[in-house]
Amino acid sequence: MTTAFDGPPLGIDTRSAVLDQYTVDETGRAGQRPCGVAYPANVDEVAAMVRWARATRTPLISRGAGTSLEGHLLAQGNELIIDLSQANSILDISPTDFTATVQPGVTRTQLNAATAESGLQFTVDPGADASLGGMAATNASGTTTVRYGGMRANVLALQVVQADGTVVRLGRAVRKSSSGYDLKDLIIGSAGTLGIITELTVRLHPIPEWLRSLRVSFPTVTAAVDAALEMLGAALPVSRLELVDAPGMIALNTFRGADYAETPALFIDIESSSEPAATAEEQEIQRIVRAHDAIDIAAARTHTERHALWADRHNLFFALKSRHPGSRFLVTDTAVPYSQLAAAVDTATRLGDELGLAISVAGHVGDGNVHTIIPFSDLNYAVVQQFSDRLVRHALAVGGTATGEHGIGLTKKKYLREEHGAAVDLMIAIKRTLDPLGLFNPGKVLDP
Amino acid sequence: MTTAFDGPPLGIDTRSAVLDQYTVDETGRAGQRPCGVAYPANVDEVAAMVRWARATRTPLISRGAGTSLEGHLLAQGNELIIDLSQANSILDISPTDFTATVQPGVTRTQLNAATAESGLQFTVDPGADASLGGMAATNASGTTTVRYGGMRANVLALQVVQADGTVVRLGRAVRKSSSGYDLKDLIIGSAGTLGIITELTVRLHPIPEWLRSLRVSFPTVTAAVDAALEMLGAALPVSRLELVDAPGMIALNTFRGADYAETPALFIDIESSSEPAATAEEQEIQRIVRAHDAIDIAAARTHTERHALWADRHNLFFALKSRHPGSRFLVTDTAVPYSQLAAAVDTATRLGDELGLAISVAGHVGDGNVHTIIPFSDLNYAVVQQFSDRLVRHALAVGGTATGEHGIGLTKKKYLREEHGAAVDLMIAIKRTLDPLGLFNPGKVLDP
Repeated sequence: MTTAFDGPPLGIDTRSAVLDQYTVDETGRAGQRPCGVAYPANVDEVAAMVRWARATRTPLISRGAGTSLEGHLLAQGNELIIDLSQANSILDISPTDFTATVQPGVTRTQLNAATAESGLQFTVDPGADASLGGMAATNASGTTTVRYGGMRANVLALQVVQADGTVVRLGRAVRKSSSGYDLKDLIIGSAGTLGIITELTVRLHPIPEWLRSLRVSFPTVTAAVDAALEMLGAALPVSRLELVDAPGMIALNTFRGADYAETPALFIDIESSSEPAATAEEQEIQRIVRAHDAIDIAAARTHTERHALWADRHNLFFALKSRHPGSRFLVTDTAVPYSQLAAAVDTATRLGDELGLAISVAGHVGDGNVHTIIPFSDLNYAVVQQFSDRLVRHALAVGGTATGEHGIGLTKKKYLREEHGAAVDLMIAIKRTLDPLGLFNPGKVLDP
Repeated sequence: MTTAFDGPPLGIDTRSAVLDQYTVDETGRAGQRPCGVAYPANVDEVAAMVRWARATRTPLISRGAGTSLEGHLLAQGNELIIDLSQANSILDISPTDFTATVQPGVTRTQLNAATAESGLQFTVDPGADASLGGMAATNASGTTTVRYGGMRANVLALQVVQADGTVVRLGRAVRKSSSGYDLKDLIIGSAGTLGIITELTVRLHPIPEWLRSLRVSFPTVTAAVDAALEMLGAALPVSRLELVDAPGMIALNTFRGADYAETPALFIDIESSSEPAATAEEQEIQRIVRAHDAIDIAAARTHTERHALWADRHNLFFALKSRHPGSRFLVTDTAVPYSQLAAAVDTATRLGDELGLAISVAGHVGDGNVHTIIPFSDLNYAVVQQFSDRLVRHALAVGGTATGEHGIGLTKKKYLREEHGAAVDLMIAIKRTLDPLGLFNPGKVLDP
């Protein structure tokens, strides 16, 4: 089917300065230098590049905004980068269907700017202004997942270029279907190892009218977690439920010149459908947090107040950076069952003390997802690795996962069999079936 | 690895009267007579039977409560039935984790009876008292899907016996993970063609404290659908949003001796987190339905009132049966984008008129899922088939799916390629990879 090509169907950028940029990722981690970069603008150009890559046995790494934290985008040998950031058109917004269809390079803030006038939003918010293709490839989620789910819940359909260069559509732009095998969710989270996403149809949700936010300080992590779980048990319409531990609050005090209690805090959003509902729900949350020994409660009711309250949570990483100037940072990403959540945070804190690391914890409590943020330098990188390793193994031992939302990439591959056992052989069989030549993001997620 | 067996590891029931029962399904549709029935009680017995089936090349049909509507369970040749209804132990309920772990034969009412004392519920409600294994196999959903999602959203992890008789665990019992390929969702909806589910860990949700129900009559289907979509756009906490068309309401009037407006009606549940919230949300719904020319509004606030209101919706099928004594019934299951929903109902009504069929429509409006209920006899079965066929093709033409929640089974196989195009070849490749001998529910979903 494929024939020999004189050259690639698209121009390939091989300038040193450009290749250098693609050799190091957002975390500062370095890979091999890729052999070049191509910038396809649409599905036909991607498909042509894949057919050429197949004919020439060129391995490919597809990428969007480049915000991966787990080495997904680093070349291992002589890969060609397929940079989809220029395939960034919003193809359709259908307010009546609550859907949008986009090219993979569209970022979430770009999409949200376009849907706002319809009163709708794309809810998956991983923090970074990631591309939707990249977010699907890593099965991203984030702060709003407790209410709206992650990418699998919010992507209805995909267009994908397969390893043989053919194009398939997976899923349908309907709210539910029981037709055929769920290939859409197989591609989501596969990190470009099974196909290249060239189009997504996603769900949009109404922008809520009545929002309340709270910041509540607690004496202990356990008290904060217990309060959070009681809110979930009371079916309160919580849309963000974030934990910042004491070291994080101390860093925020310094960074913002604030005077918050230097103890673990929850940052909470509730989304209500009327003002009386918002008031009743906020009161119920206040009752719950007081019953769990809340030290300090700040409630934000106006847009300005809410923005100021959440600015702290969003500034946490910058506050830690400013506290540890010159450091690089590693962010862990385990998720555990709710019953293990307080113990997981305590384990991280104890491990940090034991290893002499200045860690802080920021957790998506509503999802059982714990991020530990660890400043490090070349001098103590081995210790930081040991910390991460022991934290992952603790999560796996209590029924958790090595990665709640960042993906396996390159860095978590070693835990795949510990987490999934013999199911890894099934993953390998599927990789071989979908990508028999192994040209899609080789060495990522698993080794076939 | 496998060796010759003297005989099967479990007793096989081959009595004629028993096999006759398994030859006809709940819809009255008949298949071939299976060669026997085995009743494994646990994963080891299932695995042993699969190894024996592999050694003897015996095709297998696994089943739970037997409530499939699309021929999933009918033998095509000489299959052996693996009846899992006796593998029905609840293995664990963890209220703190909001999870339960069950064997596949556990039914949803059995599970809900066990979780109620913890104030928790399993929310997927397809109507029938289906087994959880069967519900996973067909990716079932139902009336509460608009709020809680279907099986994929509510199953966290599976234990599965593969075609070679080995056992794997897919997914983890955590609220989110980005680790490895999503094999859990590949098995969900695969109708026993890729593996046999022997254990499920599912999500539980708090039983809501504040419920309100409404029955609202509208002059037209379009008015009812527009009102429903406005409720979704206002982010009201709707947990059921059901349409019954005029013929359905007429049948209910006769069956119940009631005097409802004989026009299309919505049956609505809202779940609130406080009484003020419930009152505000009910008022907002009343405002919306009045703006869409509501003819009659009945609000139910107590448990007794709510039960009476929903009894009508649940009795709809019996009302239609009583109106058409001696008839069999076919139920269609298309789902379409919201913007096509009113047109899909109108298309069904016009088609019914054109073909002289006494249809009625009951739709899960919140999911775009339209069930047409059609009484028929042997005399007009060909016409009913024509109706169903034209309705499916209409749904596919407007971007919908042949099956929102019942599955492809045997009866919808002919639409698979029309719906999924070249993705069917990928499904076939996966079937061949996971079940190379083709012994798992052969001829269902697709032909490899």
